[in-house]
Amino acid sequence: MGFEQAWLTYTKKTDYSDAGEIRIIYADVKDELVRNSVSELQRALKAFYGKEPILQPDSENKNNGSGKIESIRLVLSEGRKAEGYLLTGKNGEIIIEASDSKGILYGVFDLIRRMQREEPLENLEVLKEPGMPLRMLNHWDNMDGSIERGYSGESFFFKNNEVLVDDRTVTYARLMASIGINGVVINNVNVKDSATYLITDRYSDKLKAMSEIFGGYGIKLFLSLNYAAPVELGELDGADPLSEEVRRWWKDRMKIVFDAIPNLGGFLIKADSEGRPGPFTYGRTHADGANMLAEAVRPYGGLIIWRCFVYNCRQDWRDRKTDRARSGYDNFIGLDGQFHDNVILQIKNGPMDFQVREPVHPLFGALMKTNQMLEVQAAQEYTGQQRHVCYLIPMFKEVLSFRTYMQKEMDTVGDIVSGKAFHQKNCGMAAVANTGNDENWTGHDLAAANLYGFGRLAFEPELSAEEIAGEWIRITYGRDEQTERTLLFILMNSWPAYEKYTSPLGIGWMVNPGFHYGPNVDGYEYDRWGTYHRADHLGIGVDRSHEGTGYALLYHEPNASAYDDKEKCPEELLLFFHHIPYTWQLKTGKTVIQHIYDTHFEGVEIVDEMVSRFEKLHGKLPEKVYERVTARLAHQKEHSREWRDQINSYFYRKSGIPDEKGRKIY
Amino acid sequence: MGFEQAWLTYTKKTDYSDAGEIRIIYADVKDELVRNSVSELQRALKAFYGKEPILQPDSENKNNGSGKIESIRLVLSEGRKAEGYLLTGKNGEIIIEASDSKGILYGVFDLIRRMQREEPLENLEVLKEPGMPLRMLNHWDNMDGSIERGYSGESFFFKNNEVLVDDRTVTYARLMASIGINGVVINNVNVKDSATYLITDRYSDKLKAMSEIFGGYGIKLFLSLNYAAPVELGELDGADPLSEEVRRWWKDRMKIVFDAIPNLGGFLIKADSEGRPGPFTYGRTHADGANMLAEAVRPYGGLIIWRCFVYNCRQDWRDRKTDRARSGYDNFIGLDGQFHDNVILQIKNGPMDFQVREPVHPLFGALMKTNQMLEVQAAQEYTGQQRHVCYLIPMFKEVLSFRTYMQKEMDTVGDIVSGKAFHQKNCGMAAVANTGNDENWTGHDLAAANLYGFGRLAFEPELSAEEIAGEWIRITYGRDEQTERTLLFILMNSWPAYEKYTSPLGIGWMVNPGFHYGPNVDGYEYDRWGTYHRADHLGIGVDRSHEGTGYALLYHEPNASAYDDKEKCPEELLLFFHHIPYTWQLKTGKTVIQHIYDTHFEGVEIVDEMVSRFEKLHGKLPEKVYERVTARLAHQKEHSREWRDQINSYFYRKSGIPDEKGRKIY
Repeated sequence: MGFEQAWLTYTKKTDYSDAGEIRIIYADVKDELVRNSVSELQRALKAFYGKEPILQPDSENKNNGSGKIESIRLVLSEGRKAEGYLLTGKNGEIIIEASDSKGILYGVFDLIRRMQREEPLENLEVLKEPGMPLRMLNHWDNMDGSIERGYSGESFFFKNNEVLVDDRTVTYARLMASIGINGVVINNVNVKDSATYLITDRYSDKLKAMSEIFGGYGIKLFLSLNYAAPVELGELDGADPLSEEVRRWWKDRMKIVFDAIPNLGGFLIKADSEGRPGPFTYGRTHADGANMLAEAVRPYGGLIIWRCFVYNCRQDWRDRKTDRARSGYDNFIGLDGQFHDNVILQIKNGPMDFQVREPVHPLFGALMKTNQMLEVQAAQEYTGQQRHVCYLIPMFKEVLSFRTYMQKEMDTVGDIVSGKAFHQKNCGMAAVANTGNDENWTGHDLAAANLYGFGRLAFEPELSAEEIAGEWIRITYGRDEQTERTLLFILMNSWPAYEKYTSPLGIGWMVNPGFHYGPNVDGYEYDRWGTYHRADHLGIGVDRSHEGTGYALLYHEPNASAYDDKEKCPEELLLFFHHIPYTWQLKTGKTVIQHIYDTHFEGVEIVDEMVSRFEKLHGKLPEKVYERVTARLAHQKEHSREWRDQINSYFYRKSGIPDEKGRKIY
Repeated sequence: MGFEQAWLTYTKKTDYSDAGEIRIIYADVKDELVRNSVSELQRALKAFYGKEPILQPDSENKNNGSGKIESIRLVLSEGRKAEGYLLTGKNGEIIIEASDSKGILYGVFDLIRRMQREEPLENLEVLKEPGMPLRMLNHWDNMDGSIERGYSGESFFFKNNEVLVDDRTVTYARLMASIGINGVVINNVNVKDSATYLITDRYSDKLKAMSEIFGGYGIKLFLSLNYAAPVELGELDGADPLSEEVRRWWKDRMKIVFDAIPNLGGFLIKADSEGRPGPFTYGRTHADGANMLAEAVRPYGGLIIWRCFVYNCRQDWRDRKTDRARSGYDNFIGLDGQFHDNVILQIKNGPMDFQVREPVHPLFGALMKTNQMLEVQAAQEYTGQQRHVCYLIPMFKEVLSFRTYMQKEMDTVGDIVSGKAFHQKNCGMAAVANTGNDENWTGHDLAAANLYGFGRLAFEPELSAEEIAGEWIRITYGRDEQTERTLLFILMNSWPAYEKYTSPLGIGWMVNPGFHYGPNVDGYEYDRWGTYHRADHLGIGVDRSHEGTGYALLYHEPNASAYDDKEKCPEELLLFFHHIPYTWQLKTGKTVIQHIYDTHFEGVEIVDEMVSRFEKLHGKLPEKVYERVTARLAHQKEHSREWRDQINSYFYRKSGIPDEKGRKIY
C-alpha cells in the first residue's frame, strides 16, 4: 500500500522567505546521522523554495556574517548534553551545535519544524535537551502482519512471517526521528510462533538492515522477547532463571544476536501475564528473570525492559477481595532495589489498562530504587479505536504532572521517568504505537496528533497539550487560521467528550469484551478479568478504600487519604475508589445519576459541534483528508449516541430514577 | 478421525435367544434397498449370535411353519402405504411385508431394534406407517469443513472445499435409515463461496456417488441453494424471479444438476434472511422466488423447501414497535395459497430462534393452503451446545401436540405437518443436525438421544419422549436396569433443568452474543437482533399483548385470548408475552423474582443429582463413554452455577429484592 508523509509533508512556501536565500549547508559528514541531517535540510528547503542547498565542508565556511540568512552550519562540539542541541540564527547563518550527531539531527528537525510553521529565524537562540533519556514506541505487530489493537491497517514491519525492509521503513524512521523517538520495539509483547525466532539467524539479515536504517536516524531497534524461548526453540527443557544451563543459553544466544544486529538496543518482556510464560513457572521472581537477561545483554550495552502488567486474569467475578488494580503494585513492590541497572520496569500509566480515566499507577512513587519507564497507549484501544477522535496528550500530561509525594520535591511521575528524581539514565516513556500500513499511517488522520504528540512530549515534557496540538496542525496542514482554530477545538475537546459519553466517573470498562469497542455496560461485569462496576439498584462503584480492597492506601499521603475518603476523592475517579449511591450529591450539586445523564447528553453535543465545525473546512484541507475525517466523524456522531443511549438506559432501568430534564431515555 | 457405530453398536446376546436359530433370510433382491436390508440383518444376527444367516430367494422358502423362529422373510406386496411395513412373527418365521423397498428396510431396522432390546419375537404383529411423509435432517456444514452451530467436530461431508465420500458416508446413511430419515440436506443454508458451486459440474461426481449411497438406504440427497447463484456464478446480472432469462437459466441449470445427480430430492433455500440474497432485491415475493425454482425442478420430481426464518436483523433496540416474533408471520401470511404444490415452507418451531422455551410459531394454523414443514434444532445452539445434557424430544413433542384451533379437530402442529390436516403429502419435519466428525458423532454421548429421537419421533409421532429415550438407552448401552434408570432420569430431567437455570419464564436469549453459549443477561439487550428482555428496576418482559406489539393476537382463539391476558397466559411463557413486575404473584403463590431465584437454585440441584447418579455407572458403560460424559457433566455442573449466579445476581442487583430464603446471591 502507498503511504503519505504525515507531518513531513512539505509544501511550497509563498509568503515566508526567512530561509529562502539558503544555498549552502556547512557540515563535516562524520556519520550517517549527519549525512541524513543534511539530506533532510536539502529535501525540506527544496520543497519550500524549489532550490536544494549544496553541502560544503565546515572548513570552507565563507559566511560574511551579515544580511539575510544564506547558510546553515552543523557543528559538533564538546560540552553539550547527549542528544541536546543549540539552535541559533544570526549574522546571516543558522548554526546547529551539538555534542553528538543525534543532537544535530534533532536540531535539524527542530529547524525544519520552524520553517514549516513559518516562524522567524533571525535572532534565534534555542537550547534544547531531551526531557527523558528513552523515548520509545512499542509496536504490537505480529509476524503474520496483523497488529494486536491495531486500527490503521496491517503491519509495515511484518508480513507472512517475514520482516519487511523497504521505503516505508525509511520514512517511518524519518518520522520518528523528527519527533525525537530514539527506541522502537517492532514486535508484539505477546511473542508467539515465528516471533520467537526473531532472536535466531532466520531473520537476522533483515533485522540488521532495519536496525541500520534506524541507526541512521538515531533510533535503536528493540525486540519483544519470549521468556520461554529456550524451551520453545526446542533447545532446553526449562527456562528457570537460576539454572546455570539456562543462563548460559541466554548468554550464548545474546552473543549471537548482538553480533548479528549491532544496533540492537535490547528487549521488552511481558512475562507471567495473560498466559505468557515467565519466571513464576519456576518459583522465581521477576527480578530473577529480568536480571538473568540483563546479565546476558550487558556486554553489548543492552537494556531489559520488563513490563509490570501482571495480574490474575482468571478472577472469579463473585470475589470482591481480589483487586486487579492492586496486582501490579503487589507483584513488584517487594522487588524494589533488586533489579540490575540495565533493567527498566515499564509501568502503564494506570493500574488497570489504558481506560479513558484511571488514577496514576501506584508503583510510581513506591519504587525508589528501580529504573522506571512510563507506558502509555497512543493506540486508542479503549478510547475509540481511531474511529473516534481522542487526543490523548492532555491525559499523558496529567500523568506526568501527578505528584506522588514520595519526597518533598521532584516527586512527579515526570520527575521519576525523566531520571531527575533518582538520577537515573535508564528511564523514560514508551507509547504503544497507533500506526499501521494505512496510507495515512494512523487510520484517523487526527490520530496522528497522538503519535506526533507523544514524541514531542517525551522530548519536551514542558510543552502543553495545546502547544503540541497547535504545532502538529500547523506543520501538517499549513497556515490557515480557521483550520488551526477548528482542529484545535476538535482535538482539545475530544478526550473530555469521549470521557463524558462513555463510562462515568472513573469506573472504566463498560465496553464489548474482546475487541473493546462500543458500549456494553455489563460486558465485563460477570467475567474473569477483574474489571467490575458492581452496579446495583442503589449505586455503583468499587470500594477500594480501607473498608474495601485497601487499594487507596497504596499511595503516599495526602493522596491516600484523599482517595480513601468519598468526600475528598477527586470526582472524576469517584467510582473507581468508592461504591456510591446514585443519589450522592457531587460538588456541582448534581446527583451521581443526574451527572451520568447530563454528561452523556453533553458528550454527544460536543461531538455534534465538532462535526459541524469540521464541515466548514471543506476546501481548506486536502480533499482526501477531508473525506476520511468526515466519514469517521459521521460514525463518531452516530456511535456517541449509541454510547449515550445505552449507558443512560442501563442506569435509568437499574436505578429507576428519571432524568430531571425529562430527556428521552429508553 | 475414526468413528463409532452409535446406536448400531451390536454386541453379543447371551440371555436372549428369540432370534438365535435364524439361519435363512428369504428375499428377492430387486434393488439396493433390499440388498442393504438383507446385509443389515446378516450383520446384526452375526453380531448377536456369531452366525450370519444365508440369503435365499423367497421361492425356495421351505419353512415348516412350527417351532422356534428359524427364518426371516422379506415380502414386497401390494396394498400397503408408502414406507410402511407389517412385521409379524409366527409359525417359526418372521415376515416383513411392505409395498416398497423402503418399507422393507424400515421393517428390518425395527426388527433389529427389537432384537437389540431383547424383546420377544414370537406372536409379533406390528403394523407401522410413517407419521410424516418427509423426515429430514438439515446439516449446516460448510465446504471448508466447519459447521455453523456445530458442536461435534468438523464436517464429515466436506473438507477443504471438497466433498467427502467414504466409509463414514455409509455408516451415516445406515444410522439415518435405521431411524427413518428419508431426506438429508448436506450443506449449510447460508450458501457461500464454494457451496454455490454444488450445482455445477465441479462436484457432481462426488455428489452422485453420495446420493447413490444414500439412495440405497432410502434417503434423498438435498442441497441448500444460493438464491443468487446465477449472479454469483457470473452468468447473469440479476436473479429476478420474474425475468424470463433468469427462469430459463434455472431450468437449464436444473436439467444439468438432475441429469448428473438422479437421486437428488430438491433444494432448501434461506432467502432474504440475515444477509442472504432473495427475491426482495427485485421487488418480488417469496412466492415468486420459490415458484420459479419449483417450476425448474418439477420435471425431476424435485421439491423446493423455502425457509420462513425472515426478519429484520438490523433493528434498533430503542424501537419497541417492531417485533421480531411477528416477522415470519407478517412476511408469509399474505402468500398462503400462492405456492406451487412442490414448494414447502419450512417453519421453525417458535417465532424467534430455537430458544429453550418459545410459543409455537403462529404460521402453524394460519397457513391453510400451503405445504408446511416443522423445523426443529437437534444441534443444541441455545440449549447447552452439547456440553450440557438437554434432551429435546419432550420439547418437540409439545410442539407437535400444540392445538392451533384453526379447525375443530385435526388442528395440531403434528396434524398439519403429517399431512392429515390438509391432506398434503409434501410436508413433514426437519431437524438441524447435531453431528460432526467426532468419534461419537454428537460430541456429548447423550446428545445422540436427540438425533435418534428426532428420527424416531418423525416416524412415529405417537411415541412418548420417555419411550424414545428408553429405547435409545437400551439399544445403545444394552440391558441394565441401573443404567436405564439413571440415563432416563438424566435425559428426562435435562430440559427442565436447563430451562430452570437459564433464562426464566419464556423470555429467552440472555446468552453471549455470536457464539450463544453461557449467560449474558444484557448480551442482546442493546443489540440489533430484535431479542430483548426490557428488564428494568420494576419488572421484565416484552409486551406482545394487544397493548404492545399485538403478536398474541396472531393466534386463533382461545390461544389468542390466553396469551393476551397476563392472568391466563401459560406461565412458562409469561415474560415472552407480557412485561411483568417482579412482585407479580404466580399461580404457585411465588412472586416472579422469587420464582427466578428458586428455579435457578433448583436447576443446579438437578444437575448435581444427575452427576451423582451418573458417577455410579462406572463400570457399567464403556469406559470411553463414561469418561467423555463425566467430563462434560463436570463442566455442566460448574457452568450451571455460573448461569445461576449471573442470572440471580443480575435480577437481585436490578430489583433490589432479596431472596426470601437468604441464599447467597452476589
